[in-house]
Amino acid sequence: MSERVYLMCISCGREFERDTLIYTCSSCGDLLDVVVEPKSLFRRDTLQGRVDSMWRYKELLPSFDKGLVTLGEGYTRLVECKKLAKWIGVRSLYLKLDGLNPTGSFKDRGMSVGTSTALRLRMKRVICASTGNTSASLSAYSARAGLECIVIIPREKVAVGKLFQARLFNSKVFQMVGGFDDAMTVVLKCAQALDAYILNSINPWRLEGQKTTAYEIWEQLGRTDIAVAVPVGNCGNISAIWKGFKELGIHGVIKDLPIMIGAQAEGAAPLVEYWEKGLETIRPWKNPETIATAIRIGNPVNWKKAVRALRESKGLITAVSDDDVVKALRAMSSLEGLAGEPSSAVAIAASKKLVDEGRIDPDTTLVSVVTGNPLKDTSDYLISWNEPVKITDANEIIGYFSRQK
Amino acid sequence: MSERVYLMCISCGREFERDTLIYTCSSCGDLLDVVVEPKSLFRRDTLQGRVDSMWRYKELLPSFDKGLVTLGEGYTRLVECKKLAKWIGVRSLYLKLDGLNPTGSFKDRGMSVGTSTALRLRMKRVICASTGNTSASLSAYSARAGLECIVIIPREKVAVGKLFQARLFNSKVFQMVGGFDDAMTVVLKCAQALDAYILNSINPWRLEGQKTTAYEIWEQLGRTDIAVAVPVGNCGNISAIWKGFKELGIHGVIKDLPIMIGAQAEGAAPLVEYWEKGLETIRPWKNPETIATAIRIGNPVNWKKAVRALRESKGLITAVSDDDVVKALRAMSSLEGLAGEPSSAVAIAASKKLVDEGRIDPDTTLVSVVTGNPLKDTSDYLISWNEPVKITDANEIIGYFSRQK
Repeated sequence: MSERVYLMCISCGREFERDTLIYTCSSCGDLLDVVVEPKSLFRRDTLQGRVDSMWRYKELLPSFDKGLVTLGEGYTRLVECKKLAKWIGVRSLYLKLDGLNPTGSFKDRGMSVGTSTALRLRMKRVICASTGNTSASLSAYSARAGLECIVIIPREKVAVGKLFQARLFNSKVFQMVGGFDDAMTVVLKCAQALDAYILNSINPWRLEGQKTTAYEIWEQLGRTDIAVAVPVGNCGNISAIWKGFKELGIHGVIKDLPIMIGAQAEGAAPLVEYWEKGLETIRPWKNPETIATAIRIGNPVNWKKAVRALRESKGLITAVSDDDVVKALRAMSSLEGLAGEPSSAVAIAASKKLVDEGRIDPDTTLVSVVTGNPLKDTSDYLISWNEPVKITDANEIIGYFSRQK
Repeated sequence: MSERVYLMCISCGREFERDTLIYTCSSCGDLLDVVVEPKSLFRRDTLQGRVDSMWRYKELLPSFDKGLVTLGEGYTRLVECKKLAKWIGVRSLYLKLDGLNPTGSFKDRGMSVGTSTALRLRMKRVICASTGNTSASLSAYSARAGLECIVIIPREKVAVGKLFQARLFNSKVFQMVGGFDDAMTVVLKCAQALDAYILNSINPWRLEGQKTTAYEIWEQLGRTDIAVAVPVGNCGNISAIWKGFKELGIHGVIKDLPIMIGAQAEGAAPLVEYWEKGLETIRPWKNPETIATAIRIGNPVNWKKAVRALRESKGLITAVSDDDVVKALRAMSSLEGLAGEPSSAVAIAASKKLVDEGRIDPDTTLVSVVTGNPLKDTSDYLISWNEPVKITDANEIIGYFSRQK
């Protein structure tokens, strides 16, 4: 067997050679899938002793014999959480801690493949529009790869902290008037003029990295008759994780496929609207608003792939309020000592809501993906329920606890 | 063989039963070591298939058959960095990414053992004085264990962000007038009155967790004829890592022992002063000042253990300026896409300084411990060398790069 890797349009099925510099189908304009036909059988017993990163699943990933850009991403911890399972109302719960990736989010999986692809295409520059996890991750992987990285950010509503990682990892950062959509327009113009490779969500290679979350859940949990909850913004991650599970099925590694659970914030829920109202196409939301900033997206690029994941997996999707996000974050952190950026708590809150509504069976084994590190967002409103107590000496503390009895 | 675990005074050698509620020697007042006599042989080939956390080295750790408190800490990535090796001036360099622990610092290793010990001692409460990584870690592990956690913080010079994790993980936080030493005095008073177990640096069990960094470097790198650079504040981590290597030697697992390299900031360098001036005892610094806040400590609790590590390993110690810390952080992040909180960059800066001075052989294989996640400190002065460029349209960006040619 020899490996074959190519691109295929999700709509018209047209195929493109692996090394085509292309982001969408040149025939019909729709999204592209990467297809990897493995060069050898993929089996569980071959995994022992392999690298402790997502590259342990090398048969199922595009190969980069020379020029693999890696920081040890993926193969993150899967931790059982009995108390939080009870809070949600399911039989068992596991948190997939993707906030412990090198730059603190699941994006690192995709950027490892994305920047490796940039090198393979002999690009010297990469570019993205982003104010958050994407630019942090691309900046770090570009530094590692020796690629010049350009980050375009909207000047409005950008927290200084969100820029920290892009600046730290030496990207060239441009701040422009306008919002994210304006920044994206600038990216498209600059990419061609500057010979820069675009690594925004439209890039299909990133999802090849992100699909490894599915392989890890399978390897670490040892079963796939489960539900997998994922926060949904630009719709890439839920699509990628479903792709990973489907591939395990295609290669005969697993029989049971999981139910995918999509979780959106009420203030940024175009996919929920599409799904519940049975629309023909997604209706972009102009001013999405939620504290879960990583999924504050009104016009998700990969929505068609997410719809495919929900349909094929007989999945569920729902939206939760910001209040419920704070409650879910509080439950995670207080009960288990584990937390995530607010969007990660959206998946917990949505799972609880679906159990309460009778749409998730309480007998379910649930895996919830913690997509980003809690240190990504240290806003005070997330912890306002726990105000420090001002004291002047030890007796006040002792008094405090004697009153609690 | 049956496991034997006990405490031993580093000064008078008096031994204490494992379950004695004690922090220092009741005879002479000096520090205590934990001694683990393994119940079975420890060999490399028994490690395959074990848990992906520091608990894979179970023979060498105190056992907690029931009531092990774990979030999957340790067994963090060791990543080779060729470009940064060249910058420092050594043959090869590996970064040990301990910022990817559950709460973002190496403290999680110690708190896993520390809170497990609290449960074993049937304590219901734990307490610490801290404004940083210690309180973040203790808070998370207490939540996981169901222990009530009390955190005492000085009201002065405390960044809100530093409190975020303690509040998020549901600790009871008390803010008091004064500095760290005052807060520590309050901890000592409250601990007894409130039956709370102290998990500050004086607690010898924490170092049992932290020693596993040595086991991992051995397992992951496959050799120990190396130098290991560690930031030095309260002196616990360098002592613990040395203890781990020494134990591997005692159990016949390794022959070569590493050279330990201690790294302090010039504004908080009492151990360097002690070492270089050949003092009889350490001289506490009243107002330590450095941007490397995790090691801004003037009166290190575990200094005697660190001195032992430096003497026994024929080690080196030096201090670097805050300017050099920023330069080292910039080198790490720009060259490799990896970073740490400022104290982690202190170890890089110190290694470079020692190579430049001819005190480290350029042929050395160096492992530098990245003790904390870069998201722990997102201060603007760390990235002031990379200011965003304000633009209004794409042409300005294109113009910018054409001028660069």
